[in-house]
Parts: sequence; C-alpha cells; structure tokens
Amino acid sequence: MRKLLNEELHRMEVEAFKTAAKIPVVIVLDNVRSMNNTGSVFRTSDAFRVESVFLCGITAVPPHKEIHKTALGATESVDWQYFLHTGDALVQLRKNGYTVCSIEQAEQSIMLDSFPVEEGGKYALVFGHEIRGVEQAIVDMSDYCIEIPQYGTKHSLNVSVSAGIVIWEFFRKLSATIG
Amino acid sequence: MRKLLNEELHRMEVEAFKTAAKIPVVIVLDNVRSMNNTGSVFRTSDAFRVESVFLCGITAVPPHKEIHKTALGATESVDWQYFLHTGDALVQLRKNGYTVCSIEQAEQSIMLDSFPVEEGGKYALVFGHEIRGVEQAIVDMSDYCIEIPQYGTKHSLNVSVSAGIVIWEFFRKLSATIG
Repeated sequence: MRKLLNEELHRMEVEAFKTAAKIPVVIVLDNVRSMNNTGSVFRTSDAFRVESVFLCGITAVPPHKEIHKTALGATESVDWQYFLHTGDALVQLRKNGYTVCSIEQAEQSIMLDSFPVEEGGKYALVFGHEIRGVEQAIVDMSDYCIEIPQYGTKHSLNVSVSAGIVIWEFFRKLSATIG
Repeated sequence: MRKLLNEELHRMEVEAFKTAAKIPVVIVLDNVRSMNNTGSVFRTSDAFRVESVFLCGITAVPPHKEIHKTALGATESVDWQYFLHTGDALVQLRKNGYTVCSIEQAEQSIMLDSFPVEEGGKYALVFGHEIRGVEQAIVDMSDYCIEIPQYGTKHSLNVSVSAGIVIWEFFRKLSATIG
C-alpha cells in the first residue's frame, strides 16, 4: 500500500473552505487555558468542517505563535468569534436555534454513544477548562450534558482529545449534510 | 444538572486496572517525536482500557516529566513496552494473532467508519511521526491502512487526536469485551 503524497490528498484551499458546506456544529471553548488545546481544536474543526469555534473568557485568540503550533493554519480556514463571557455565546446560540450540549460528567449526563444526534438539528458543543471543566453556571444554561464513557483510572481526557472524539461522533452522524 | 465530583466518578485504582478486562487493542507508536502526544495516548489508552502501548524508535519512554504532563499518571496503569525497531514490534504482534492496521492515507486505505472491526479480532493500531507519518516500510508490513476521512484544508490531524478518534471507534465496537 503506497502512502499518498500530500498533493494527492486534494485538500481544498482556504477560500473554497469558507464557502463549502459545513456540519451544523459550533464548538464553544469555555475558558480553555492551553493554546496547544485551542490550536488542536481548530485543526480538528477544519478536518470535519465545523461551522465556527467560539473562544470564551481566558481562551486565547489567534493569531498567536502557541496556537499556530498545533492549528498549523486552521485558524485561517475555520470561522471563529471571541466572547468575554461564555454565557453570552450560549444566549446567542440558543436564539439561533442551537441545542447546547456541555461535555461534562454530571447528574443526568447522556453517554456520547447514546446521544441522539438528529438530522436537521444544530448543535453547540461546550468544552471547558483543563482542570475545572465547564463552569457549573454554563452547565446550568445547557440543554444537555454529554459524557464520554471512561473505564480507566483517570477522571478525564485531554481537552483536545475529548473534542476530537465528540466532533468525530457528530461528524459521523451529520456528514450527510456536507454531501 | 449538577457536575459530579471526581470521587463520584468511582474510577478504579491502578492495581484493579492491571487485572481488569481490556479491549483487544495494542497501540504502536512508530517514531512519535512529541512527548506531549505520547503522554496523551497513554491517558486515552487508560480511559478505554487498551491492552498495551508499544513505544518504538525515537518515541520517548516513561518516566519523563514531559510525558507526565499529559499522561498524568496513566503510564502507571497502562502496560507498555519499548522496541528499538517498529518492525520487531509488528513481527511479535502478528505472531500473536493481531491484525496490524497503520493509520495512514494510502492507496487502498479503508475509511475509519467503514472498517469492519470484528468481534473476536485482536488489533494493533500503528500511529506515526508527526510530519512523516507511519514509515512506508511499516505500512508494507501492515494488513490494512485505516484513514480518518478529512474534509478541510489541512492534510492530517494531531497524532494525539487521531489516536483518540481511532481508539474511541474501536472501543465503541469492542467494548462488549470488557463487560
């Protein structure tokens, strides 16, 4: 099996990406501390054609050398906005018809593999601080909590890995929308 | 929805993890440069009860401060071995009945969501260097190449994110084995 060269992958240019169909998903980063994680979320959002990334609170915004290290240019293709308060982002999203899902371990959280992603639905997926997770006040404003089932010794996954898994799961179920 | 405290998650202790049922998956890191990525793979492998992580070539081994930053102790729970040559790891795995799958974009690669994970199968999943990917010689020794479908401007995902997505997908399909 011959490995393909980058040019054989026929990826789209940034300009084409801007107007290409997206999956109806917005990623909300609620006070994510690490620029490594933020950059990685951009790169994953590029790969799976996420609509937009909302950067909130202490989450750093591009352009920044540390974000670029893991985003590798995906901050140019993927749309983003900054909000000082995560709550303001959620108010706007709900007004625009998005179902708000915090990725958290909470009472009544739904396991990722059981969460019913609906065709025609629009989803905002909220990821929180590396230690504190999503703030309780933001969880309280959410329609659902989605939990990634975990069976080991540690309490959580890296933020960029959690985002990768959840975005992939939503992409699998919504990718018909990008043809 | 009240967020759960860490102690309410009832994660297992390291000793219990050692003897707990695992999914029949070994992760092979073929010359992964970043200790951040290696640590993150350990943390994900802990969450989804991966059998073992095989660290090959230039891939750093624990204990190391830089691995610990992202593994956060998962190098204590998850079994691992070091191989100077990735090929030697693959020879051992094939001898022990593992189907070897390189995660690569190659001619005849199978898209992740289409790959038939079989009950009763044992899988070695090979992830490569951050820039070069899995070496062609290692791809040549593999039974399959699995590709994560990507629809953006960039050519690949971060190694730790790729590993998260692929491990999650195999876990979803094999988790019946851990009851």
